[in-house]
Parts: sequence; C-alpha cells; structure tokens
Amino acid sequence: MAGSSPEASRTSSQEPGLRLRDLSETDLLARIVPLFRSAPGVLVGPGDDAAVVASGHSVVATTDSMVRGRDWRDDWSSGADVGRKVVAQNLADVAAMGAVPTALLVSFAADPDTEVAWVLDVTGGLAAAAGEAEVAVVGGDLSSAPAGVVVVSVTALGDLQGRSPVLRSGARVGDVVAVCGSLGFSGGGLALYAAGTPVPPSSPAGGVPAANNASPAGAGLGEREERDAAVATLMWAHRTAGRPPRRAGVAAADAGASALIDVSDGLVRDAGRIAAASGVSVALSGQLLREGFAAGPLTLALGEEEAMRQVLSGGEEHSLVGCFPRPAWERLRAAAPAPGEPGWRRIGEVVSRADGEGVLVTVDGQVPSVTGWDHFAG
Amino acid sequence: MAGSSPEASRTSSQEPGLRLRDLSETDLLARIVPLFRSAPGVLVGPGDDAAVVASGHSVVATTDSMVRGRDWRDDWSSGADVGRKVVAQNLADVAAMGAVPTALLVSFAADPDTEVAWVLDVTGGLAAAAGEAEVAVVGGDLSSAPAGVVVVSVTALGDLQGRSPVLRSGARVGDVVAVCGSLGFSGGGLALYAAGTPVPPSSPAGGVPAANNASPAGAGLGEREERDAAVATLMWAHRTAGRPPRRAGVAAADAGASALIDVSDGLVRDAGRIAAASGVSVALSGQLLREGFAAGPLTLALGEEEAMRQVLSGGEEHSLVGCFPRPAWERLRAAAPAPGEPGWRRIGEVVSRADGEGVLVTVDGQVPSVTGWDHFAG
Repeated sequence: MAGSSPEASRTSSQEPGLRLRDLSETDLLARIVPLFRSAPGVLVGPGDDAAVVASGHSVVATTDSMVRGRDWRDDWSSGADVGRKVVAQNLADVAAMGAVPTALLVSFAADPDTEVAWVLDVTGGLAAAAGEAEVAVVGGDLSSAPAGVVVVSVTALGDLQGRSPVLRSGARVGDVVAVCGSLGFSGGGLALYAAGTPVPPSSPAGGVPAANNASPAGAGLGEREERDAAVATLMWAHRTAGRPPRRAGVAAADAGASALIDVSDGLVRDAGRIAAASGVSVALSGQLLREGFAAGPLTLALGEEEAMRQVLSGGEEHSLVGCFPRPAWERLRAAAPAPGEPGWRRIGEVVSRADGEGVLVTVDGQVPSVTGWDHFAG
Repeated sequence: MAGSSPEASRTSSQEPGLRLRDLSETDLLARIVPLFRSAPGVLVGPGDDAAVVASGHSVVATTDSMVRGRDWRDDWSSGADVGRKVVAQNLADVAAMGAVPTALLVSFAADPDTEVAWVLDVTGGLAAAAGEAEVAVVGGDLSSAPAGVVVVSVTALGDLQGRSPVLRSGARVGDVVAVCGSLGFSGGGLALYAAGTPVPPSSPAGGVPAANNASPAGAGLGEREERDAAVATLMWAHRTAGRPPRRAGVAAADAGASALIDVSDGLVRDAGRIAAASGVSVALSGQLLREGFAAGPLTLALGEEEAMRQVLSGGEEHSLVGCFPRPAWERLRAAAPAPGEPGWRRIGEVVSRADGEGVLVTVDGQVPSVTGWDHFAG
C-alpha cells in the first residue's frame, strides 16, 4: 500500500449505487482493509481478534467520534473530509501528551443503505491522514445502524518512547503560554458555512496542504482572490481540521513543556482546562493573539471582530497549547520546527490564580465573554 | 471506588426525567467518571487528552460497538445489560489473543433527549463488568447524536505479558479443538425474545452470576421451574453476554494453544475463520457438541433440534474456541480452571483441508447447513 493514494482512486473503482446492505461483511472488509497500510511496530494488524502493537513502557490511548448531522453535514463535507478530521482529532490528543502515534482503530456504525462508495471515501480519508502521520490502522468494527445514522469512532494509541506524559496539570506561575498551529480557522469556516457562504472556486479541498497557520493564504493575489482564498482555507479547515501540527507535541515535550492540550473546544475553554488542572490562571495577550492569529485569513474572511472571537472560542482546531518554563521555551525557540510545520507563538503567560475568584483565563486582564463548544446542550 | 457497587445504586440518586441536554458535559462527566475505578498500571486515567497505560513489550487493542435498535432493544435490555455486554465482547477479543486486559475506552454517542438515568445505568453496567475483570476505564468520548440514536463503542487494550499472541492462523492438523464456556445461549435467548417469550420470574437479571456453561441452570427444581430457569438463563445471556470466561485465554496460551478465537458470529462461522486463516479444516463431533453444549438449558428451553442449531450458529456468546497440539491439550486438562470459570471441552479436531474444496468446518463429516450473523445484510 505504501505510496498509493487512496483518495485519488476513490471514485474510479466503485460501483455507483452500491449500498452497504448489498455487501457481506467479508466483501466490505476486503475493500476497506487494503486501503490501510501497516507501519513499523504493528505486530498483528487487522484480521485477528485484536491487534498487537509494539510498545515501550507505556501506551497512550484516546478516542474521539464523529456523528453524521452533528459533527458533519453531507452537503458540506465529503467522506474523505470526515475520515481526515476524525483522525486529526485523535492524533492531536496523542500529540498533546507528548507521544508519537502508533496505531488507530476505527469503529464504524452505519445505516445499511449507506453508499459503499461513500464508506470507501471515508476510508480513503482515514487512510490518507494515517499515512501522512505514518500510523497504521490496526483494527476496527462494523455495525449496522438505523436509517440515516453514521457514527465513525477512532481510537488512537501512542508511544511515549520513555518520555513522561505532558499533562494538563503541570503549568506553573511564570511559564510562557504558546500555541503551535492556527486558531479559529475551523470555527471561522463553520461560521461561513452557517451563513450560507458558497465555497470559492479556489477551495483547497481534495488534500491541498494549505499552511495551517496565520500566514496569508493567498499571498500575491488580488484583493478579491485573497479573500476568496482565505474563505476557502477556513471552510476547508472546518471540513477536515486542516493540517494540525503532528510533531510539535513531541518537540514540546522534549524541550520541557510543563503542560499541553489541543484546541478542541476553543482556546479559552481549553486553556482554562490547563488552568483548572494546574491551579493557576492563564493571562493571554490580546495583541499577541491579534497579530499572531487573527490577522491574515481570519480577518480577511471575517473582519477583525469576528476573527478575534473565533481565535478565542473556535473549536475543532486541534492546534496545540503549551506551557513552558523559561528554559524550556528558550530550547523550543532555538530548535527549528519540523519540516512543513509551523513554529510555536507566544500568546501569554501563566499567573497565580486569585484565591476564591475562580478566574481561569483572562485576555488583557479581562475575563473574555466567549465560551466554547458543549455537546448535548440544547 | 473499589468495593462499591455501581449497579446497586443506579436508581437511587438519579433525578427522574433528567435528559442529557439538561447537563453540561462537565456535569455529565462528573457523574460518569467516578463510577469507574482505576487499576494497577493506569498511569494517567480519564481527564487528560489521552490515557497512559503501562505495558510490557506489546499492546493488544480491539474495538466493538453496540447500536440501539440493532444490537439491543430497550424493551428487552436495561442500560446495565448493554454496558455489560459491550465490555464482555471486547474482553473476549483480548482473551482470544492470550492477553490480560488492561484498560477500556468508551465512546458514547447519544440523542441529547436520552435520560441521564439510563446513561448512568449503562455506565454502571460498564463499570461492574470492568470491575469484575479488574480492568480500568481510562478514557472516552461523548458525542451528541440524532433523535433516538445511541451508539456505545468500547476499545479494549491488553497486555501479552511477554507471551506471543495466539493468532487464528496457527492451527495444525491433528490439534484438538475445544471450547471454554457455553455455546448457543445468547442465540437461544434471542430466539426466545423474538418468539415473544415472556421472561420467567426466576430470571437471573441484575447480575446474578449464572454458571455460563451447559450445566443445568435449575438443578433440583421441578420440571416447569427447571424449564423456566433455563429460559431465563438464555434470555439473560442474550441481554448481557452472560459471563464468558475471562482467564481461559491466558491459560490456553500458557498451555500452548495454536489458535484461539471467541464466538462472536457462531461456532461454525468462527471456527471457519480459524480454518481459513490456518489453511486447514475443523472436523466437529455432533455427539460432543450435543452432550457437552446442547444438553441442559438449551435443550430444556428450545428442544433438541433448535438447541443444536444454536450451538452451531448462535452468535454473541463470546466463549473461546481453541486449537491445541496434543501436549498442550494434556497440559490444559491437567490444570484446574480459574475459580468460577468452566473448563475446556473437546469438540473435534483439526484435519487437512481437501484441496480445492474449500470446506472449512464439518460436523460428523457433513457440511452443516447453518450460517452465522452478518451486519448490514438486508
């Protein structure tokens, strides 16, 4: 499988109109399993009762799901987009522990009337994202579901390679707070979709690896083209989670990060989780956030005010937030980022929490009036 | 949490009518996470980006899901039944590799209108089954789902403790084929439910640990009471997966098993998977299956013919099928089963596969006219 491009072939070999109910499990698995390639350390891959993955001394494990109609809409996202996004979500959690991902398991519950071509498109997206991260899909499960229902759950395993896990609870007063990757792109893209914005023709869909940080998406273009490129980048980021940094978590751990988290539910909410777990407050700088993250595509596409709102509250970005004691921060800044990945940008610092006040995150000393994403809430 | 009984308290402390949409994720997790206890080897449990589990040199990983309306019906099964069953399915896959389970992750996608009390009942069943197996729930994920939809996915990790994994592909001609646990109970229970059979008042629901093997379920009772006990045992086995053997996989691996699988889709289909992977045939003895498995509760509840059909084709039993070279079989028979677990019973032997015929499993030399369970099939 190495070197093949699952997404490129996704429409060529499929029988149109073929539904899940038309295939036996064996037939379906025969189409799915070859899309995943193996990786070093996979001792037993798909096909037995369970997979076996080589490990150092400890295993990192996390799980994240996507539900049709809740976590994606078929009129916005392709199957490949969904597959990419659910992998990105899981790999970000592994990265946020300071671990290297080693294996994925995929659990797929779907209406038997689902088109097989769409399932294979999801599979292609999963396989492409897994392949880029050099991680194997080692197992999974297929279940039938009621009419219209599709749920894709991924579990990711990771190897700390002898490192201590970087927890949310390790931030200390005086640490530098920094972000690797973009902020607000996915949330901004969702806002554009929700407003009925058509996807501009220059959309980076289909796997074009846009730089997932705050550099202008369409440098050298005219104003209209630049805005279109920015809009397309944000909408693509919402559909696929873009390309969150994959190696930055390990680099941060090696440099001596005291705490790490990925941005799942918005910067304020996720930085607040570090603050809550560590018994500190996180003081963010509005200027650093505006200059480093809101400027560029976000402001081009959404205007300054909405851009800043998305930077603070946009979810599903899966960039990393880290806290760094000064020597660790100096080490991190001295090291070059991994090829194709953005560097870390400072956004604030860890301060002591005023007793009894319970303020976890401030922006320029004020409590921001934004919140992040909550499941189930009506 | 050690020593508490999550199921016992499941109805006492819940507000009736409380729905998922009425709670924040934080509030819901505050009710769910304390139901799970930790275990040795869990270095980081729920609450961070990912869990960290100590490991020897390799990790076994598997996943299995249950979907409301497909894998269970609310009018038949309680939440606790569902929680127990999805854990049993996963632990059986770990056992079938010859590994000791170390950790579970739970992914839960549910309609926000789902009653919180029911979710906590599922959680109680998960926690109880995990507790009995001395395995920790180390992480999970919550997602909202469309109206009426609930999907519970579990991923199980296991530790081979230096053993080689026991694959499906290791069976050799001359090996003894044996089963540990019951056959056909769950399938028989499903048939009883499907026929509209009322659950007899002596139902072992609520966690009564009926001996999950072919010994009569109601020894010493009158004929009617004996049949009722048998019916109740089968229906309970369908709802909860009963109590499949947990330690027998490791014992089989230690004795030198050449192949192992758990009965998910029916004996003929799952033994056929060993045969297919190993390039052999499995020759089953009708007499050994009748005497060792169809006799007792199955025949009492269903009659001889249907009992034998369920022994051959009943799914979701999660007992273990093993293949054993003669010295391994002698070692296994010389060792006592783990306390509370049944012993292994011989059901046939591994024979060479006639070239070009593709017959994987025979019963008394004939190809049985039963098949197992397939998802998606219309």
